[in-house]
Amino acid sequence: MKNRREFIKKTALVTAGSTLFLAGCSDSSPPTKSVNINKNRKTRISLATSWPANFPIMGEGISRFAKRVGVISGGSIKIKVHPKNELVPAFGVFDATSVGAIDAYHSASYFYKGKNEAFNLFTGFPFGLTATEMNAWIDFGGGMEIWRELYAKHNLVPFKGGNTDVQMGGWFKKEINTLEDLKGLKMRIPGLGGEVFAKLGVKPILLPPGEIFVSLERNMLDATEWLGPSLDIKMGFAKVAKNYYTGWHEPGSMLSLVFNKKKFDKLSDEQKMMIEMASNELNSTMATEFQYENAKALKEIKKLDVTIRSFPKEIMEKARLAMMEVAKEKSAKSADFKLAWESAYAFMEENRAWSDIGMRAYLEAR
Amino acid sequence: MKNRREFIKKTALVTAGSTLFLAGCSDSSPPTKSVNINKNRKTRISLATSWPANFPIMGEGISRFAKRVGVISGGSIKIKVHPKNELVPAFGVFDATSVGAIDAYHSASYFYKGKNEAFNLFTGFPFGLTATEMNAWIDFGGGMEIWRELYAKHNLVPFKGGNTDVQMGGWFKKEINTLEDLKGLKMRIPGLGGEVFAKLGVKPILLPPGEIFVSLERNMLDATEWLGPSLDIKMGFAKVAKNYYTGWHEPGSMLSLVFNKKKFDKLSDEQKMMIEMASNELNSTMATEFQYENAKALKEIKKLDVTIRSFPKEIMEKARLAMMEVAKEKSAKSADFKLAWESAYAFMEENRAWSDIGMRAYLEAR
Repeated sequence: MKNRREFIKKTALVTAGSTLFLAGCSDSSPPTKSVNINKNRKTRISLATSWPANFPIMGEGISRFAKRVGVISGGSIKIKVHPKNELVPAFGVFDATSVGAIDAYHSASYFYKGKNEAFNLFTGFPFGLTATEMNAWIDFGGGMEIWRELYAKHNLVPFKGGNTDVQMGGWFKKEINTLEDLKGLKMRIPGLGGEVFAKLGVKPILLPPGEIFVSLERNMLDATEWLGPSLDIKMGFAKVAKNYYTGWHEPGSMLSLVFNKKKFDKLSDEQKMMIEMASNELNSTMATEFQYENAKALKEIKKLDVTIRSFPKEIMEKARLAMMEVAKEKSAKSADFKLAWESAYAFMEENRAWSDIGMRAYLEAR
Repeated sequence: MKNRREFIKKTALVTAGSTLFLAGCSDSSPPTKSVNINKNRKTRISLATSWPANFPIMGEGISRFAKRVGVISGGSIKIKVHPKNELVPAFGVFDATSVGAIDAYHSASYFYKGKNEAFNLFTGFPFGLTATEMNAWIDFGGGMEIWRELYAKHNLVPFKGGNTDVQMGGWFKKEINTLEDLKGLKMRIPGLGGEVFAKLGVKPILLPPGEIFVSLERNMLDATEWLGPSLDIKMGFAKVAKNYYTGWHEPGSMLSLVFNKKKFDKLSDEQKMMIEMASNELNSTMATEFQYENAKALKEIKKLDVTIRSFPKEIMEKARLAMMEVAKEKSAKSADFKLAWESAYAFMEENRAWSDIGMRAYLEAR
């Protein structure tokens, strides 16, 4: 009997909550502090991703995020995750969320550099910030303020959405010893890394994921980068390219979790903080999981007759200078890029000094 | 009028929630899934720390954690943070929480090695796991299962509670060039680092924080470690010891957030996940903040006529062997230490291989 009575009370309570929601959701009259009328407001969020269903680490991460927000909100926030092409194409999520066709997305900011070159920098840049440094720039170094400001123009509210850890420099069929070896090399390398390598004579080629392996196998590509050991191993590159180079162009790529601003603004303060907290968890857990999976996969890769190499200093030095040129050119064309670049680059310089004395010196001593 | 009506409805709703709580809090009859009667249960948690009030980064971090749990729980979890000595002494928090005199604490596991030598390893170990690797061991490598098992014997439930980032090797009055230079050296260095250095001839000395600077100034100490640039700079060591060594003994010390098990078990599933999620946020935000503050402080330290040095390879090699000896000795005496050590050490070996190729190679190329 007691349980039944409770059930009835509970049902009444939920109904009351819904009524409050319907009556009180005007944005122009916020409730007083002591009466949080939004508290039990139920909301459904349709969230599309740029990844296939159950994509390892990244896709699994956003699904876990959605489930956990469901639990901590007591079911008041129901997030339905849609893999790429279910509602919108992989790279259609930005526009779809911007216009409110969907409520949110999980993707990477640099995919949308066509909208604004500055968007590259909320993923990262060659010779740029590591995962921890990126978090520090976003949370303490002014990065989030710039990100929010630039995304607000598109009716979007961004959050940190995970980090891939250091990405590898890619799989090369031939060893790279001199700058000459890069000239005319056909390589799958997108983004700023591709622009930098283009200045060194590489021919960057863009291909859908499903065509990379075959192109490499048939010598239509001489090299390709992808991500790191954990995801590279699944692509089979080790079978046809035996030189695996250490990373320089995506040192700590951050993913983004982005909400339609109108939708987000309707959440209660409590719900907003739940989203923020769950995004912080998603962001760190993904970096942790990449560490774990990369270490496991590397062990397997070493069994495949692959040689791990680093680019010669001469090449890295030229690439670093090329990155400064790319940044200068983009800054001249885009005030937004200039704003974000100056902030991120100064932050990197200051933080590199510490990371060299802290993390790098430790890794060298271990 | 509308607002007033809403207020009355809301008040009724809260009262109903409390009634449910009073009627339904028996642990022996869990509610059915569809009616979560624990949902609005209000709970107060007294949490004591090992830090002074408003201690930078660590103390501020746990206060932020408490506030944010308050918000996302809609006030259903009220955590009151007590700095050291307010309710219990700094290192009395483990026992006080174990017996239920307080509900939770924020501290570091290695302070309680007197209870169990294995507890050292849930903070870290010399030549051990970096912050990211530690997270990976705890969350994916089996570390949390061991930690939970060993703490359950003390009626405690542990969570990750922050990370200090790589700690520096310490401040030395004289340059250290050979193993001979370490013989008889009086150094403030606690924990496993102290045990390792003792095997190399150092005389580890334990002192309360307030006495370290004066002892160093008056030559009663030849050297001291503390944490990293961010907190070291506040201690004034740079005035009296001009050689600042890079780290080896605390590469990613994890703090711990620990609950009395009975108290924790009474929380609803929803509240438990809120605590876990907020602890994940605390854990990563603290590492992020240390990165940011260390980089800022290092800039200041460089203005103080301080030379940053790394220990010679010969010393690091001997120290690494000494750590293996320490681990062997402790493993022989404690099955718990052996269990945790074998898990953590194997994990470190596997993860070092990736960190060297990922993070270290990148930091060297940047």
